[in-house]
Parts: sequence; C-alpha cells; structure tokens
Amino acid sequence: MTRIGEELYAHVGALYPIFRSITGPGLRQTLDYIGRQIPLRVQEIPSGTQVLDWVVPPEWSVRSATIETRDGRTVVDFAEHGLHLVHYSQPIDRLVPLDELQEHLHSLPDQPTLIPYRTSYYKESWGFCLAHEVRTRLRDPAYRVRIDTTLAPGSLSLGEAFLPGDEAGEVLISAHICHPQLANDNLSGIAVAIALAQKLTARRRRFGYRFLFMPGTIGAVAWLHQNRDARARIHHGLVLTCLGDPGPPTYKRSRQGASLIDRCAAHVLSDEGFADRILPFTPWGYDERQYCSPGFDLPVGCLMRSPSGAFPEYHTSADDLSLVTPAALADSLSRLDRILSMAEDDHRPVNAMPYGEPQLGPRGLYFSPTDDPQPFATETLLWVLNLSDARHSLLDIAERAGRPFEEVAAAARVLSAKGLLRRAEVR
Amino acid sequence: MTRIGEELYAHVGALYPIFRSITGPGLRQTLDYIGRQIPLRVQEIPSGTQVLDWVVPPEWSVRSATIETRDGRTVVDFAEHGLHLVHYSQPIDRLVPLDELQEHLHSLPDQPTLIPYRTSYYKESWGFCLAHEVRTRLRDPAYRVRIDTTLAPGSLSLGEAFLPGDEAGEVLISAHICHPQLANDNLSGIAVAIALAQKLTARRRRFGYRFLFMPGTIGAVAWLHQNRDARARIHHGLVLTCLGDPGPPTYKRSRQGASLIDRCAAHVLSDEGFADRILPFTPWGYDERQYCSPGFDLPVGCLMRSPSGAFPEYHTSADDLSLVTPAALADSLSRLDRILSMAEDDHRPVNAMPYGEPQLGPRGLYFSPTDDPQPFATETLLWVLNLSDARHSLLDIAERAGRPFEEVAAAARVLSAKGLLRRAEVR
Amino acid sequence: MTRIGEELYAHVGALYPIFRSITGPGLRQTLDYIGRQIPLRVQEIPSGTQVLDWVVPPEWSVRSATIETRDGRTVVDFAEHGLHLVHYSQPIDRLVPLDELQEHLHSLPDQPTLIPYRTSYYKESWGFCLAHEVRTRLRDPAYRVRIDTTLAPGSLSLGEAFLPGDEAGEVLISAHICHPQLANDNLSGIAVAIALAQKLTARRRRFGYRFLFMPGTIGAVAWLHQNRDARARIHHGLVLTCLGDPGPPTYKRSRQGASLIDRCAAHVLSDEGFADRILPFTPWGYDERQYCSPGFDLPVGCLMRSPSGAFPEYHTSADDLSLVTPAALADSLSRLDRILSMAEDDHRPVNAMPYGEPQLGPRGLYFSPTDDPQPFATETLLWVLNLSDARHSLLDIAERAGRPFEEVAAAARVLSAKGLLRRAEVR
Repeated sequence: MTRIGEELYAHVGALYPIFRSITGPGLRQTLDYIGRQIPLRVQEIPSGTQVLDWVVPPEWSVRSATIETRDGRTVVDFAEHGLHLVHYSQPIDRLVPLDELQEHLHSLPDQPTLIPYRTSYYKESWGFCLAHEVRTRLRDPAYRVRIDTTLAPGSLSLGEAFLPGDEAGEVLISAHICHPQLANDNLSGIAVAIALAQKLTARRRRFGYRFLFMPGTIGAVAWLHQNRDARARIHHGLVLTCLGDPGPPTYKRSRQGASLIDRCAAHVLSDEGFADRILPFTPWGYDERQYCSPGFDLPVGCLMRSPSGAFPEYHTSADDLSLVTPAALADSLSRLDRILSMAEDDHRPVNAMPYGEPQLGPRGLYFSPTDDPQPFATETLLWVLNLSDARHSLLDIAERAGRPFEEVAAAARVLSAKGLLRRAEVR
Repeated sequence: MTRIGEELYAHVGALYPIFRSITGPGLRQTLDYIGRQIPLRVQEIPSGTQVLDWVVPPEWSVRSATIETRDGRTVVDFAEHGLHLVHYSQPIDRLVPLDELQEHLHSLPDQPTLIPYRTSYYKESWGFCLAHEVRTRLRDPAYRVRIDTTLAPGSLSLGEAFLPGDEAGEVLISAHICHPQLANDNLSGIAVAIALAQKLTARRRRFGYRFLFMPGTIGAVAWLHQNRDARARIHHGLVLTCLGDPGPPTYKRSRQGASLIDRCAAHVLSDEGFADRILPFTPWGYDERQYCSPGFDLPVGCLMRSPSGAFPEYHTSADDLSLVTPAALADSLSRLDRILSMAEDDHRPVNAMPYGEPQLGPRGLYFSPTDDPQPFATETLLWVLNLSDARHSLLDIAERAGRPFEEVAAAARVLSAKGLLRRAEVR
Repeated sequence: MTRIGEELYAHVGALYPIFRSITGPGLRQTLDYIGRQIPLRVQEIPSGTQVLDWVVPPEWSVRSATIETRDGRTVVDFAEHGLHLVHYSQPIDRLVPLDELQEHLHSLPDQPTLIPYRTSYYKESWGFCLAHEVRTRLRDPAYRVRIDTTLAPGSLSLGEAFLPGDEAGEVLISAHICHPQLANDNLSGIAVAIALAQKLTARRRRFGYRFLFMPGTIGAVAWLHQNRDARARIHHGLVLTCLGDPGPPTYKRSRQGASLIDRCAAHVLSDEGFADRILPFTPWGYDERQYCSPGFDLPVGCLMRSPSGAFPEYHTSADDLSLVTPAALADSLSRLDRILSMAEDDHRPVNAMPYGEPQLGPRGLYFSPTDDPQPFATETLLWVLNLSDARHSLLDIAERAGRPFEEVAAAARVLSAKGLLRRAEVR
C-alpha cells in the first residue's frame, strides 16, 4: 500500500510541471509519459475534422506570456505558473490601458492568494489569471501585455490502451488529460488509471479494458465519433477524476442509474459506510456527460473523492502537489479495483441440488465454532444456496443477505468447488 | 389579478341570492346566468328517466315555508334564508306538536348560531334547518307548520359548454350547481369554471374542453349515462369546488392516482410548497366518485382549497359571501390554469443530435453570467438535452431535474427553435 | 377461549413427558397421541433410504444413561430429564477420566441452573448436557459413564393428515415433533395444529389442508422427496412453532416474500399493532428452509410468538410447562385461524353495476346514524364498490382502504347478497 501510494504519487509528480491544454506539445508530452508506463496507441486527429457536432480546434502552443509595467517590471509571468494564461489566448503584444486590461483579468476575491484556471477554447479571446492580491496592486494607467502563442492547424491527440478479455464486452476507463498543472483534477485520475492498467495486465480478465487518456469534452466527442457502436461493445465503465485529495470517496451514477457498475460502486461505498456519497446522475461534470448523452447512454459512472467544485482548491493553483497524498491515491486505486473486480466476478449461480438443503456435514461445509475461521459466515453460505436459482446474481444475493459481495463470492467459490453450484449459461 | 379576482367574486355575488336545488327554477336561473357569460347548451331530462342505476326525480319548487307560533309569530322563514328548508320537503300545512316537530328539525349544537344544510332527495320527508339557539327557544306545545312546495313531473337541467381543440381528446371541467346559498361550496367552483372557459376561448387549444354545470350526483350520473364512451374521449379532467376560501390549495387524486392530471396537479402543488396537500383518491366526496366509478375510471381529480368537511363553515349558513375572497378565487384560477397548461404543453421531445452533447456556443446557447438572464438555468437546458430520448416527457424531465415544469418547457422551446429538438410522433 | 386454551394446554401437558428424537419409540408415541385426536396416516421410511440429498439415519433408542462417581453416586441421570443425553449418543460403559469427560459435557455458564439441548444426529459421538452448577462440582479424577442406547436399522416416522377442499390447491401446515421435553419448541405447534385440524374438519373448506407432523429437517426432506410436485399442489402454507409463550406474535415471510399467505399474515399482524414483528425470510430457522429451498420455493411462512433463539428459555430445560400458557396457545390458534380464513375468503369481486355509483338507498344500503350499527363503515362499502373491477382482490381493497380484511369481506357479502357483486371467474 505504501509502495503503490508512492508510485501513484510519483506519476502525479512527474506530470505536474508539464503545461497542458486540449491540444499542443504539453498534451503530447503527457501521452509520452503514459506510453512509457503502459502500451499506448496515440492518435492525432487533424484540426478542422468534424467530430459529432463539434470541430477539432486549431492546435495551440505557448512560448511565453507576461504583463509588464511600462518600465519593464514583470507583474505576471506564464513561466512562473501555467495557470496564469487563459487557455487558447490569441497572441498580443501592445500597451494596454488598465481599464481594458481589467476586462481580460481573472482572479478570486474570496481566495486572494490563488490563481484561478480559465479557458476560452471556442471563443477568440485572450486573458490572464492571477492572484487577487496581485491584481489589486495594479494601479498604473497602462501595462505592456505580451502573449506569444500560436493557434494553427495541427491535431488533437488521443491516447488509448486496450487489454483484451475472455468475453466480448469492454470496460471503459476514461481520464481527461487536458488540465494544466492541477494535481487532483486530473493528474490523480491519470495516475490511478495507469496503475490499474498495470495491475490488470497481470491478471486473467473476463472483460476487455479500454483506457482512454484524452482532452475533456472534445476528446470524448472525437472518440465517440469513431465508436458509434460503443453501446454494443461497452459493458460498463468509469470516468476517473479527483482521486488524490483527502476527502471521502464519491460515486456519481450513470444516466441508467442502476446498471451493473452503478450497483457495484454503490455496494462498495455503502459497505464502506459512504452511502451518503452516492450521487444521482446529472448531465454535467466530466466526460460522463458525453458517454451518457441520450444517443449513447453508456453505463459509465464517475468515481471521485471530493467532487469537482466541492473542494476549495478546485480549479485553482492550490490544487497542487500538496493537495494529493500517496495514501489517498492508493485508497482510490484499491476501491476502484474492488468495484471492477465485483463486476468481473458477478454471475448468476445455479444450485446443483435445489430440492431441499444439501447436507453440509459430509461435504465438510458444516463449521463449528472450534473449526478454523472461514471467509464467510454460515448464514452467507445458506443465502447463496437458497438464492442460486439462475435469477439472482451474486450481487443480488449480497444485497438481499446484507453481506459484502466478496463474502458471498467466497461462499459461492467453496460451494462450486464442492459441486453444489454451477454458473448459469446466460448472464 | 385584482381585476380577475373582482370578476370572480362578482359571479359568486350574483349567484348567491338564488335558491337552488337539484331541480327547479333556481337551477334554471343559475344556468341562465352562466349562459350569459359563456355559450352554454342547456338540456332538460324529464322526471322519471332512468339514468344508469338512478331515476331522474320529480321537479321541486318552493313558494314559501314557515314555522309559526299559534298566535301567528313567525319563528322560522324560508324567505329569510334558503337553508331553512330541508331540500325536497313535501308540502304540509298543519299544527304540529313540538315533540313531532323536533323530529323534523336540524341544528348544530356546537355551532349554535349557524343554519345547517340538509337534503332528502330520495326519501319522502319534510324538515327545517335552524340555528340551535333558535331551536332551544321553541317551548310552545305546538307550532303551525306551512310548507308550500310542489313535487311534480318536470325535468333535470344540465348545462354543457364545449371548446374544441386541435386534438381529439377532451378535458372535463365539472362543477356542481345544486347547492343553495352556499358561497364556497359551490359558487366558487362555478365562478372559476366560467372564467377558465373565457380564458381558454381566447387561446389555441390542444385539447377540447368540456365544461359541465350540473346538480351533484344525479347530474353527473345523467351525463355519464349519455356518454358511455367517456373513457375513450376524456383525456383528463377536474372537479372544481371550494375554491374561494382563504385556505391553502388541496388536490385529491383520481382513482388512477398517477395519471397525467394527477402528476400535473401534484407537480404544481409540490412546486408551490403544498406537497402535504396532495390527497389520495377516496370513493366519496364530489362528482369524482361518479367519474371514477370502476366502469368509467376517468382520470378526473378534484381541485379545492379547504376540502369539504374540513372547514367549520362547510354546509352551514356561514359559507356565505364573507368566506370567499377575490384573492383566493383569483389564486385558484391561476393555479388551475397552470395545471391545465402543463397538460397542454407536455410532450416527449426528441433530441435531434443525441450523440454527444451539441455545441452550445455557436448556437447562442452558452450563457455567461454577464448575459441577459434566461428563463431557465443552463443545468435545465442540459437536462432537457440529456433526457429528450422520446421516452421522457417534459414532466418526467422536470421531475428528474427537480425543476419547475415551465422552466423545462421554456428550455425545450429554445432548443426546438434552434433545431435541436423535435416532438415525438406518438404521445 | 378459556376452554380451547385448556384443551391446547392439555395436549402440551400430555406430550411433555415423552422423550422424543428424530427416530425411535418416543416419536411413535407422539404420533399415536396425535392420531387419537385427528385421523392420521403414519408412514415408516426405513433407515438407509435416500431422500433428496439425505439418508434416513438408523433408529435410536435409549434405555438409560448415567454418570456416576466411582463409589456409585449418580451425578447425572437421563431418567431425571430427557435433555441430559446428547441425541444419537453411542453406547458406552467405562470409567472416563474427568479431562476426557469434560469434552463430552455441555452446559450453559450464563444460565447455570438450566440443562441445554444438544444433538449429534449425523456425527458419531456421545455426550451429556447438565446444569453448569452441577458440572463445576465434578472434581473426581474419573467417572463411570454408562449409556445404554441402540443405533440400529429401523425407520423414520412421519404423520400426515389431509382434509380435502372444494378447490384443488392444498394448504400445508407443518409442525416438527422431534424435540424432547421442550414445551414451547415445539409441543405448542403440535397442539395448535391438532386444534386447527379439528376446527377445519367441521367447516366447508375452499382449499385442502395437509397437516405434517414430522421430525425436523429429515422429516421435511423425506416428505418433499415423495412430493416433488409440491409446487404445483401447495397453494400456501405455514410452519408452526413456539406458539405458547407469552411473547407477542411473530411472522417470518416465505422466500417469495409477498405471496398470499405472506400478505394475509402481514395484514393480521399489522392490524393487531404488531407490524414490527413481521420478519423477512432468511434461509435458516425451521422447516421453512426446506419448503423454501430454491427447487421448491413454496409460499410457506412461519408463525411464532417469540422466535427461536430470541427467548432465554430456548433449547433449555426452562422451556417447560411453566413457559407456555393456555391464553397464549388460544391466542395463537385464533390468529392462525384468522390468517387462514383470510386466504380462504380472498377473491376478486366484480361490480355488477360499475357505471356510476349504484343507488344505495332503495337497496337498504344507505345507513344513517340512527340505524342499527353495521359490521362495516359506509366508506368501506364505497371502497368495495369502487375497486371491484376484477383486478383488485378483497385483500388489495383492504390494504388500499386501510381497513381490516374482515370488514371489507363483510361489506362484499352484503353487496353480493344485493346482487351488486359477483366473483371473478379466474382467481
């Protein structure tokens, strides 16, 4: 746990200094890093390509951006923090009167020391984000504003990794990678996704696992554009974000609301005592809004700790390496693994001796208090026998019995080994 | 609002002095008055006609009714208040010993100054209603009782107004008109129905609107007798009663319980903070008990303020012009209009771009805090886009989004205007 | 009530002294007793017979069992209490060192004066149960242990009584008879079942009633083995146990959860104010675990007072004739009768005049406060008329109206007598 926590934190640390946006060199550097951890297929979609209702924007690259006094003192410098520049700012190099400049500045009066994060991808503009306490000190009549950026035909970069499974269905794991120098949102999601892919590589998998590392919205839209058949292929999935802060876990349901992944995540959070952190679907948030658009309606929920907008550091310079912790990252990975493992293991068992109870004693299944402790209570064993009628899944049984899924699954494994259970043919 | 309140109150004031029963001249005067406000078809059904399980009773008319002392002092006089006479009292003119007279008197010991309202339509009888404090002063050994009434073949009068709509379904609006000199129950219902008909006349209507002004029970039974196909024609409906008192609104569900009108009324009352005033169906009350009899089972609920029996003035002389107020009447009309408009506007929208989210910015649908305020939140717009899958109606969307129906409808109109929504073919 | 209570208590008193186990002479004596009260068919299934997954065990008979000091003082004597001997103890006659003996002793440190009840049907063993205060006085280095028992081929005895009904479906009433000298668990169940059979014999019955008096588990398994078609024949049923203690009633639902018997029992307990004593199904307890095994899944619940394990006298020598009372036994019989009568009477009535309300007055169904009191409120009459649409059963109506079933049934009977209701053809 400590080791994996450190590993996860190291990914966040390595990616934090890179300046990212929805296109451009930082995005590619990020994908390069991921590609060194897990086998990744990177795709470039040219600017101007129509994807669903959207068009791939020009590629944006930044060389420098400053606000200086007329006597050459630097007031705001992009080189100091990537959040200083509004994303997709147009180039500019001129003296700007303070009044005009103010219309291009963004700060947080209630958090005067923090730099906010702002973008203007689809509206031509330029602007700076800065600490409010710095902004209030701007009193000169005019400032020299220099933004050395390029907005030019290029491409949108998407990373995709696929681990095949025994069955046809795929599990979608999606993390956005467009946020610049924000640690929890969303380097934590990238780190956890990398580690999950590494873990799964070593395992036999029932489902295939498809990892998407893409810029928010436009990336998901582009991928869905290429995968119109997603509904038929995607068995379930999760968007990963904000998984490194110290807050308790949060699960936001998919639009379907009670799909397998929704039930697995809700079972895990309830079992952990976080039933109040299971949120209903809403058509805003992260890329689940694309996956859950009505034409696709994929069973894809969103796993978080503190949800977007619900922690004070959200979308500010305070979402830095001090906000995320190895322990929180490791805990998130462990929970994610538990949820996905449940979906892997769930099936509808069939009692091979459904008429009356089978005799447990001769099969070594009658445990007395002096026997070695079993990973399940005798009551759980009886529940599995009683409900294994090809209509109840292990998860159904766990919910009716009020026991953890894993305990029910352990009992089912023992019963299977004794020939008392088999799997239903059709899921 | 003030003007419409005064108009509504004026109807109640004009009708209050008329003595009404389930048949007879006062009933016709009442229909004449309504017919001067809106186009009304009046029908006369002869006494003795079989209607469903009932028979149209003889027509009853009253000329005078008094109780006098032997020395000629009038103790009770129908001319002073129409409630004094038990409806359908037989004629009588004789000296009645006090003991016998007491069996024919009705008063309210707990409300000693009020005259109760009593009827005996289907059992031959006679009787007087009087203030209990007057009754206790009756100490003479006998009184001269004179009831000059006629019970003779005549007819039952029914008033009906119909406003055709674009679609085939009809909305039933039913008000009973048989109560004598009671303002809230039910002149308020008549007044609100008249004003609603006037409002609807000026509008394009999706549904037809059928207004019924009829004596309670026998009138509804007679109309249903003639309209055995009501189930096929009536899309939904409301019984209107007790709409003028100062109490909060009440909605009593139809037998179906969750029909469109039930959901619209429940949505409106919930949105107004009156969720606790939504009552389940019971097979007693007003004419909904006929409309909701099992052979018809029409989706017809009952809109009220203080429900029958739940206000102290109910069925007494205190249900007079001082109980109802212009403001309460206007508020009732406005609520009724809102409920019926919801049913008019509800439909299942279909997202024309269901794959991923459509781009809002280029369509002028991306609103920033500095834009003019919209009649809907951006979240509501996103809910409509997300749930417009031909399976969710606007009302379904409003309920899932937890937003007022009208806000959802406004968002849907804007999206339709932008070509992002169309209507599902089949409702 | 007093008489029937005494009768029930007399059955318990007559059966209490008999030593019973799952086979053997005491079991036959018990069936003999039952057979003297009601016509009983007794069946003997030979040891070694395979029944479902089980095998009928050898027959066990006990002549004597003692623990003596070496100088001949008797410390524990089966002749004093049948609970002293662990059931199915093998014969033994030798001096046993105290250390070894302790491994064969069972006592209750928390209830030091009580003898516990223990069995070892399916594992070769021997042992004694004794008061903990007696056990702690055992200090000799060795004791003379004599168990004079026989485990030999014989048979398993099952008692069955059947009362045919007008319809094909059968009601299963099951009581286990294998417990030795325990009054509440389960002589109370046997006594109530006997009295129920006697009551039902004198009545016209819609369903057939099948009474099973059998040793727990192996008896139910054997019966089910012979009755693989039980699912098709058994309309519903109840396991009877722990019906004589002074605790409030308890109902444990069948696996189906909302079958007719579940709803009837839940209605009765709710109506009596014991809604909190309605328990969900669990796959442990009494023979409902066999009847509700997934292959059979019979709608068979369990009626009790204090549930097994939930009263301190459970499975100890304190479950004696002082624990059960005539009043509790009579109350249990009365509740059982009420539940089963509801299931007999329930049906889906059809309103013969479903269009509008029928006129009640001319049919003598319009009751005024001065009329004789009726066994039902007028509101109940209106509910029955309103919901008698061939889709609602009397129980459905009772639940929607919030009235006791019997009141609804009384109203339905009166309406039927007036020709206003008929029965739906198909249940």
